[in-house]
Amino acid sequence: MAKGLLVFQSDFGNSDGAVSAMHGVANSVKLGIPIYEITHQIPQYNLWEASYRLLQAINYWPEETVFVSIVDPGVGSDRRAVVAKTANNHYIVTPDNGTLTHVHASIGITAMREIDESVNRLPNSGESHTFHGRDIFAYTGARLASDIIQFEEVGPALEIADIISLPFKKSIIQDEVIYGNIDIIDKPFGNLWTNISRDLFRQIANEHGDSFEVSIKTDGRTVYNNIMTFGRSFADLHIGEPLVYVNSLDNIGIAINQGSFADAYRIGTGTNWEVVIGKAPRIIYE
Amino acid sequence: MAKGLLVFQSDFGNSDGAVSAMHGVANSVKLGIPIYEITHQIPQYNLWEASYRLLQAINYWPEETVFVSIVDPGVGSDRRAVVAKTANNHYIVTPDNGTLTHVHASIGITAMREIDESVNRLPNSGESHTFHGRDIFAYTGARLASDIIQFEEVGPALEIADIISLPFKKSIIQDEVIYGNIDIIDKPFGNLWTNISRDLFRQIANEHGDSFEVSIKTDGRTVYNNIMTFGRSFADLHIGEPLVYVNSLDNIGIAINQGSFADAYRIGTGTNWEVVIGKAPRIIYE
Amino acid sequence: MAKGLLVFQSDFGNSDGAVSAMHGVANSVKLGIPIYEITHQIPQYNLWEASYRLLQAINYWPEETVFVSIVDPGVGSDRRAVVAKTANNHYIVTPDNGTLTHVHASIGITAMREIDESVNRLPNSGESHTFHGRDIFAYTGARLASDIIQFEEVGPALEIADIISLPFKKSIIQDEVIYGNIDIIDKPFGNLWTNISRDLFRQIANEHGDSFEVSIKTDGRTVYNNIMTFGRSFADLHIGEPLVYVNSLDNIGIAINQGSFADAYRIGTGTNWEVVIGKAPRIIYE
Repeated sequence: MAKGLLVFQSDFGNSDGAVSAMHGVANSVKLGIPIYEITHQIPQYNLWEASYRLLQAINYWPEETVFVSIVDPGVGSDRRAVVAKTANNHYIVTPDNGTLTHVHASIGITAMREIDESVNRLPNSGESHTFHGRDIFAYTGARLASDIIQFEEVGPALEIADIISLPFKKSIIQDEVIYGNIDIIDKPFGNLWTNISRDLFRQIANEHGDSFEVSIKTDGRTVYNNIMTFGRSFADLHIGEPLVYVNSLDNIGIAINQGSFADAYRIGTGTNWEVVIGKAPRIIYE
Repeated sequence: MAKGLLVFQSDFGNSDGAVSAMHGVANSVKLGIPIYEITHQIPQYNLWEASYRLLQAINYWPEETVFVSIVDPGVGSDRRAVVAKTANNHYIVTPDNGTLTHVHASIGITAMREIDESVNRLPNSGESHTFHGRDIFAYTGARLASDIIQFEEVGPALEIADIISLPFKKSIIQDEVIYGNIDIIDKPFGNLWTNISRDLFRQIANEHGDSFEVSIKTDGRTVYNNIMTFGRSFADLHIGEPLVYVNSLDNIGIAINQGSFADAYRIGTGTNWEVVIGKAPRIIYE
Repeated sequence: MAKGLLVFQSDFGNSDGAVSAMHGVANSVKLGIPIYEITHQIPQYNLWEASYRLLQAINYWPEETVFVSIVDPGVGSDRRAVVAKTANNHYIVTPDNGTLTHVHASIGITAMREIDESVNRLPNSGESHTFHGRDIFAYTGARLASDIIQFEEVGPALEIADIISLPFKKSIIQDEVIYGNIDIIDKPFGNLWTNISRDLFRQIANEHGDSFEVSIKTDGRTVYNNIMTFGRSFADLHIGEPLVYVNSLDNIGIAINQGSFADAYRIGTGTNWEVVIGKAPRIIYE
């Protein structure tokens, strides 16, 4: 039984009336429904970032919270509109277009149903084919969150194996050197968030204060190569000093204390932005 | 009897404490009042966009929802502070400066009252003459939404005929060619939203997939002229292909699938941005 | 006894999942807790602006409202995590790093306690040392707002005298000339907000419509020098005309009617941006 909370995410921005139309639909389903947001500033059509931001926020919400994520470049195509249920008992209402990639890989999707639009669609919205966020996703999310429908009433069950996932790489360790990539930029600070978990990093890192050699490469070109400290937090470093640290998702981050690492070295994100971290060569002063 | 929902819109932006001061006033009127937003990113003093964004969102909210819109270049002048009641039983608390243009033309205002500031003003706010959003509009909106005052207690009734409307043109059809203009850009996607209704367009359009010749002109200059398809949704087209479509307000939109039409051709908005749509000349390949 | 309202402020921006993670933690403490914001657009690490925006909003909220402000360049250092109680019975949960400067100077802090992280920390959040906003401040703020803990249970009492304050100057009057500085820009309008109170200005200003000579200097250089009118509101002036006025915080503002004074003259903020206001020399036309 759902607990009433509805959390939105989209690439609609906050400068027009689209988000408010969705909030209005949700309030029409249930007056005063508690509405929250992840962000509406997902870069347009960026499914990778939509998927990542969901992972960043979802586990801090109570069980049964209903998330509605609308980054939907294929609206009107035959991409499926679904509700996914996670291993931690959250619901995600979304087009099945890659948005579920990170949650599926890191938390696990345990059940998924296709939204039956013949019953789960805002009444009298049949002529518009470009705003499923309002007419299908917000409407269905609000009805699910408000216990008006149950998960089983969303529509027919789908195979978990059929979930659309974006391509991504796992980080690996070889001869005490870790190879990963840059998943995302921690806006607005400009820190790099990698796909290297704390546990993997701990295989080569003994304690805070140790030094590591960090290289960043893209398209065969080395963009950055330097020694930096493993800091417990930014405050352990001088202002302007680079560091590796454990970020708020328990992955390895790379930052300049109070500066923007991403801006400083024009770092991008994705599977072709590789990070290599090894123990720093011991420097002996004679 | 109002249902408690309060929805704000302004040109204050989201980077300072002004919006929060209004939310605080509303909570001082009624603790925990459900507050939502259209947007606070209306371009400064842009009454046209304020008017349009209200229209974009208002009908998706439950009856009796109270909207507070503050784009107020004439704050402190003798422009009237009003509450308007729409034909669909929504309330709009706003300066009467053109903000009501689109709702009045498309939905209808059925009653309007001037806010009597001698009773409907935040206590002890008399010395500030620059922030009526906080001292008059948010305060009155919250009291109306919370049923502390009724519409009749706002102040004296005004004539509907006296509502201030911004100049705008209606689209027309002549010899199977439609003449309209570009009302607004669908941010952040860059699609053009015209003032041509689906019903008018249907007089020359038989079915999805048909081709149309679209011209865009401003100040006597043709900015764009090309053939494009009438798509049911973006997904019917190739990525990068232009289309005409029915937007989420049941008007005709013009877009590039997954691109920004407005950026591509530097399109502006207003009555001097004219759109001409006719049936595409039949092309015969011999 | 707290009334349940929780108001956030940070420099996290609105484009990722960080704010939502905090909102999720608050909802995990109490389902459906009423959450509001001041802004998350504080420029990164800008403690002065964090302090000022708190002052701008706080007094319009009901007593017992709990504010959570996280601009925290020293996260992970030995800067103290505190809850401050104001003379107007608001609570502020924040790192004690200067964020309390303006509220302390203008309203008064009457009690302060250090957050005892051994009891007031999100369970199982011990490995992350970079997101105290989520793990300590949001968690403690939500528990305080929801009456799960009382102010006395936050942790040990601190001396008011030990509050960290940023350096700031008071405005002074000398021979009927007022010397102040520019505290902040009123975004997005570009008006200047000074540290000169209405009361101080009234010592040289008789009535609206009088003229004043306004100079703005920085680093020994005069950036602006002109005569302008004391307007009751912007509407008293021509569009494009400069004015001095009483802003919504009861301080003196300097603006161009419907223009951006800050952009026009590239004005900055801080103690090295000096404003000098004197009575305008009487101009006699012969």
